[in-house]
Amino acid sequence: MAKRIGTGTILLTRPPVILGAAVVGTSKEAQGPLAKELTYVFTDATAGAKTWEQAESVLHGEAVRRALDAASLRPEQVDLHLGGDLLNQCMATTFGVRALHMPLAGVYGACSTMALTLALAGVLTDSGAVRVAAASTSSHFCAAEKQFRMPLEYGGQRPPTSQWTATAAGAAVIGTEGSGPRIEAVYFGRIEDCGVTDSANMGAAMAPAACETIAGFLRDTQTQPQDYDMILTGDLGVVGTRLLLELLRSQHGLSVERVHADCGLMLYDLQSQDVHAGASGCGCSAAVVCGYILRRLREKRLRRVLFAGTGALLSGVSPLQGESVPGIAHAVLLTDGEGRR
Amino acid sequence: MAKRIGTGTILLTRPPVILGAAVVGTSKEAQGPLAKELTYVFTDATAGAKTWEQAESVLHGEAVRRALDAASLRPEQVDLHLGGDLLNQCMATTFGVRALHMPLAGVYGACSTMALTLALAGVLTDSGAVRVAAASTSSHFCAAEKQFRMPLEYGGQRPPTSQWTATAAGAAVIGTEGSGPRIEAVYFGRIEDCGVTDSANMGAAMAPAACETIAGFLRDTQTQPQDYDMILTGDLGVVGTRLLLELLRSQHGLSVERVHADCGLMLYDLQSQDVHAGASGCGCSAAVVCGYILRRLREKRLRRVLFAGTGALLSGVSPLQGESVPGIAHAVLLTDGEGRR
Repeated sequence: MAKRIGTGTILLTRPPVILGAAVVGTSKEAQGPLAKELTYVFTDATAGAKTWEQAESVLHGEAVRRALDAASLRPEQVDLHLGGDLLNQCMATTFGVRALHMPLAGVYGACSTMALTLALAGVLTDSGAVRVAAASTSSHFCAAEKQFRMPLEYGGQRPPTSQWTATAAGAAVIGTEGSGPRIEAVYFGRIEDCGVTDSANMGAAMAPAACETIAGFLRDTQTQPQDYDMILTGDLGVVGTRLLLELLRSQHGLSVERVHADCGLMLYDLQSQDVHAGASGCGCSAAVVCGYILRRLREKRLRRVLFAGTGALLSGVSPLQGESVPGIAHAVLLTDGEGRR
Repeated sequence: MAKRIGTGTILLTRPPVILGAAVVGTSKEAQGPLAKELTYVFTDATAGAKTWEQAESVLHGEAVRRALDAASLRPEQVDLHLGGDLLNQCMATTFGVRALHMPLAGVYGACSTMALTLALAGVLTDSGAVRVAAASTSSHFCAAEKQFRMPLEYGGQRPPTSQWTATAAGAAVIGTEGSGPRIEAVYFGRIEDCGVTDSANMGAAMAPAACETIAGFLRDTQTQPQDYDMILTGDLGVVGTRLLLELLRSQHGLSVERVHADCGLMLYDLQSQDVHAGASGCGCSAAVVCGYILRRLREKRLRRVLFAGTGALLSGVSPLQGESVPGIAHAVLLTDGEGRR
């Protein structure tokens, strides 16, 4: 039975266990610092498909199937799959998992989708409504460029503030029984809009939402940054990270530098991989969390990680119609599960 | 505490109450048979905005605000808003409710979104994780034509199987305390794909999913069609309804004719309003359920309604890439609340 505290934190009293997880990427991701965290690597960004959208579906489905394998569960044992992605109408999810035939609740949270699916899966599993849940998301650089900016063939220049959409998918399987990392608390974020109109500066658009979600969670739980091994944002990149640290200090008197990490700064080597301000896309934080973070929690090298996934709420047309780019951030508290077993 | 039975039905043991609801439409909807169920009517489909997408945002926000008014609640009292729509990246939701600053979980279920948001809101409220939830969705004929088919200026002909996207939004506010219609059970559907490739025939694409969800719910709960005052699909239209009745009979030996109704056949007058095979779009079932159905449940003119919202999972590009149009259907059992008070 969940317990609400403060202005928006939900404590899960029977914290669900992450039974298995998987990350799928391509050669680009395999050239980065997290190469060994990838469960499977497609050497070609087409993943054998004819279109970029279909390639993303292949990645998405592969991640979900491999997460089920890691949990030693079959699709029929999943009560609810929470999945979403950046493609129009979440098509990578639809076509990626169609064949698995699991009950599916589509979710949209832009690049915060991994956090949002984990948060919903956590609460629903804790409630007893769902015994086993799957949570997944994906993104694809070429599909995202085509959809939100220009097809690659156009050869548009990327400004220094831009982030590189990860061509990756991540999935986790969450249950009530077993041992492993747990989801101990969740926080559903609000839309924060500081009026950023530059759709090539997602970090700036998302930082205010990350700030309010992290500050809200710490306030609700009466904890300090040092109570966490890591406060992980995904994915603010260079620009958004700098803004987040400034905002937390100036707005809330919080210094998180010592424990802060950002998925957008972890997936690629910023010096050598030409990704400008870092990584982004639903697949970025999915890859970092479902690979690097969950493994370290399983190995007890991390004990308590507050993961605040961040999303920039825009479409291909909204900035062209003069809209700003609002941000949103959803958070889950992931632990090594020791404290509650 | 929710209780799972059968292959996918979740019984809510403390059935949440629908505290308030609202429907917003335009002149077209106000010329239909459900005119008096509309909470507010925009006489102009632009709703005073400069673009169709922004007009849909105006409708969406107005429906949510009016549902809150109907429930006598302020946005600050809502623990979680579950909202989504048909626009790319759910932009009508984002910009429609941004100013309300409620915690927001974006949801994508194509035209099944009203059922999906109600289902999630029901389970989350029942679990205690959320005390008050909002559920909402919207669609706009002109925005949908532009996004999925062609801008209106093109003057494309609509085939007889096509349905008319409702320019409407619906919202409901769900809580744990109070009296009124209740959400007694939910059923999350699976993707069903019978290989329909005609994106102008949504009814055919969605009927198999509606069939499996309705049959699954009846099987799980060991009930018969006559145990319901209404089994309501949304929105199959003329073609999909005929297929649904055939499929239920041939696949599951079920005859639902006597209690079946379809939102797509209720919103407009098919003879006089030139909508071909009926209404569709997220706003269609939202309007019928948040208006007509909930009022009759409040007035005890209906006691038990199984609402199976149906969605066609396609984007503007997926049919052009040779993909079929899979369907999905999510269901909620709505009652007048008498049995459980």
